[in-house]
Amino acid sequence: MPNSTERERERELSMENGGSAAARWRFEGNERLILAGGVTVRGVLNTVIGNLDGNDTRPVIPLGHGDPSAFPSFRTSPFAEDAVCSAVRSTKFNGYSSTVGIPAARSAVAEYLSKDLPYKLSPDDVFLTIGCTQALEAVVTVLARPGANLLLPRPGFPYYEARAGFCSLEFRHFDLLPEQDWEVDLASVEALADENTVAMVIINPGNPCGNVFKYEHLKKVAETARKLGILVISDEVYDHLTFGSNPFVPMGVFASIAPILTLGSISKRWIVPGWRLGWLVTNDPDGILTKQGIVDSIKGFLNISADPATFMQGAVPQILENTPSDFFQKIVSTLRETADICYERSKEIPCITCPSRPEGSMFAMVKLNLSLLEGIEDDMDFCCKLAKEESVILLPGFAVGLKNWLRVTFAIEPSSLDDGFLRIKAFHQRHAKKQ
Amino acid sequence: MPNSTERERERELSMENGGSAAARWRFEGNERLILAGGVTVRGVLNTVIGNLDGNDTRPVIPLGHGDPSAFPSFRTSPFAEDAVCSAVRSTKFNGYSSTVGIPAARSAVAEYLSKDLPYKLSPDDVFLTIGCTQALEAVVTVLARPGANLLLPRPGFPYYEARAGFCSLEFRHFDLLPEQDWEVDLASVEALADENTVAMVIINPGNPCGNVFKYEHLKKVAETARKLGILVISDEVYDHLTFGSNPFVPMGVFASIAPILTLGSISKRWIVPGWRLGWLVTNDPDGILTKQGIVDSIKGFLNISADPATFMQGAVPQILENTPSDFFQKIVSTLRETADICYERSKEIPCITCPSRPEGSMFAMVKLNLSLLEGIEDDMDFCCKLAKEESVILLPGFAVGLKNWLRVTFAIEPSSLDDGFLRIKAFHQRHAKKQ
Ligand SMILES: Cc1ncc(COP(=O)(O)O)c(C=O)c1O
Ligand SMILES: Cc1ncc(COP(=O)(O)O)c(C=O)c1O
Repeated sequence: MPNSTERERERELSMENGGSAAARWRFEGNERLILAGGVTVRGVLNTVIGNLDGNDTRPVIPLGHGDPSAFPSFRTSPFAEDAVCSAVRSTKFNGYSSTVGIPAARSAVAEYLSKDLPYKLSPDDVFLTIGCTQALEAVVTVLARPGANLLLPRPGFPYYEARAGFCSLEFRHFDLLPEQDWEVDLASVEALADENTVAMVIINPGNPCGNVFKYEHLKKVAETARKLGILVISDEVYDHLTFGSNPFVPMGVFASIAPILTLGSISKRWIVPGWRLGWLVTNDPDGILTKQGIVDSIKGFLNISADPATFMQGAVPQILENTPSDFFQKIVSTLRETADICYERSKEIPCITCPSRPEGSMFAMVKLNLSLLEGIEDDMDFCCKLAKEESVILLPGFAVGLKNWLRVTFAIEPSSLDDGFLRIKAFHQRHAKKQ
Repeated sequence: MPNSTERERERELSMENGGSAAARWRFEGNERLILAGGVTVRGVLNTVIGNLDGNDTRPVIPLGHGDPSAFPSFRTSPFAEDAVCSAVRSTKFNGYSSTVGIPAARSAVAEYLSKDLPYKLSPDDVFLTIGCTQALEAVVTVLARPGANLLLPRPGFPYYEARAGFCSLEFRHFDLLPEQDWEVDLASVEALADENTVAMVIINPGNPCGNVFKYEHLKKVAETARKLGILVISDEVYDHLTFGSNPFVPMGVFASIAPILTLGSISKRWIVPGWRLGWLVTNDPDGILTKQGIVDSIKGFLNISADPATFMQGAVPQILENTPSDFFQKIVSTLRETADICYERSKEIPCITCPSRPEGSMFAMVKLNLSLLEGIEDDMDFCCKLAKEESVILLPGFAVGLKNWLRVTFAIEPSSLDDGFLRIKAFHQRHAKKQ
């Protein structure tokens, strides 16, 4: 966007050139939107990818993004494809859906999530969204009022910051503790919160840390929220992608302690992020979210927003109920294998340290020890040079809030992951500081 | 949402009941979102529908909403269904798309729209969106800056007002003139505009008026925009649904006069509003939209927003290129037939007047003459009583900006439409003022 002096000059010029008043265009772009685009994972990754060397004939090894759908080991279940095609063929789902989602889909999601809860969700607790992304958009927009603030995890998923920034909702960061399996630093949560704090976000299983919160820890999160009078937004988009000792426990289990908004989608468990079907669920046995106007605000948001494709909603009951369990078992066992490769292989590379074996999601955070390297300035520099020299893509940690860490996506063919770590090792050796 | 006194009382009560500070929940809903929900067509229609009499055994005749996908005569083309299913089956479109849309889909839309333009659009001019709805969201959000204002047609499509209200973008209404085939009152546009006006919206073919703007009139719109230094947002979601004497002319034809943002989707022409695939297109041969930061702002918006399903994007080239023309011919000839029924039948009912034969889209506006009726207060009262007594749903005109008019959707089986008008006639006779 030209600044105002430039614009003035343009106008004058065009007047001199015999232009009429027509050249004085009165509209202009929205700086807030332009800036909001700069902090997304996609934006940073695109910069890293820009460093790839076209002359390198080896395949690029993409360990940067959270979308393994292109890899054969992570192909979605044909049952899910069948469900979508038969919904399309039925001609029953060509029309607009209701803004909150079609009843059959709301029921199916309520049933699906209730299996892991000590109580039964009602279909009215479920709002269908365009992936977990729109659920997140809805929640942030609903909570944005002047003066309010939101507590976000560091490291985290920067889309929360981008959306909050766009809505002018202040955010503050609490830490996840690497030496404690990436648990929430609850003392810092209490220290950060004030009377204008409205909610805190947790992501479980964790992006970017690959951790899975224990039952006891989640309970403490709920108790802290209750004490502070805030709600808990639990981003469970990686639900059931767990392969360590901690089972997945939905935050909704603790809804009688503090009200919970659960965000989820089929994107990760079914490996279909392009299908754009998610949900926003109120876990609210005491009716607090209704009483405080949160439920009406969610409905208001959805009333003025685009909806997920109706046939995707029509397919949801089939997808949730009929996908054979061996599909999930295969995905989880592949992830267990690649998480292990990631953890073990990183031990062989002195300049990176993975604080604990990843137990969930598809990511690990590894710490970069720059003092062991020569000529590498920081995490971004590391990733750009690695892309250039080894055709391996990693996400610099600053993009998720931890400078001089790296996020590794291990959801990829095991052999490619192995190859990727060999290349990172070679990169390390080439750049290791001479003693 | 409880007001603040009520909330205070709640808090005190819960403290008395031995509650801890926990009961002082600090989050609350967003009044702006709750209010935004109240002005949508869907909201008003739901109120009208609430008046249906469950004891009436006749079928409900829905002439209120713009979604004929459920009627056999308006079933989408099996070629379009094939395209979606083969995109799903291909497994190539399960992943995230880029935020602006996948290249093949952008190219296909550029090709499709260029057929009606005197120049060729580039794929870079095309941004894929979640139906025309998200295109509209994007445009309004991009233009919203403090102090700016947007000119909207009256009658119009209230989603613009809802979104602008939500973004705190001021809007002002210019009139469409019923006695001049619903052309834009350009004098009122000039009178309304000031130095903070950034854009004007036209909807062509028209919702709710069923009109199609002539080439000459569109040219005048462009000239007015140039004179005022504003851009034209041309909502062409009903493109090619024309069946009168005026052919469809895209506003982009006049892009060298003033920059144009064209909004569209496959929702209406293919009768698949539930598929959620649309576009936002910059018609900008002189690069003004780029220079003014509009293009970067659109990209910024899309960067932080949900995307249309990737396989829908994958299916777009097939849908746009391979749908046989007899599908379109059949739809248009059915609409011509029902538009005629609507126009002719309304002549038989004294209390309503249709100022001109509808020539495009799927709607007509008819004027209500309340002085001929007894015990009917206004358009809303008319619609509610009609729903109750005759199981016919119409949209009260106030919902689209014209009080005491009615919007009739004629995209329905011809026999049902006939039946609907017979029932409206019976309603009229029952409520006609005795002379
Ligand atoms: C933590 C987290 N939340 C939300 C999302 C968005 O999910 P979806 O693809 O379902 O929109 C992602 C995607 O990567 C994520 O990692
Ligand atoms: C004038 C107008 N614009 C936009 C839309 C939204 O279109 P879509 O269903 O493609 O989101 C509609 C739908 O009725 C409309 O009438």
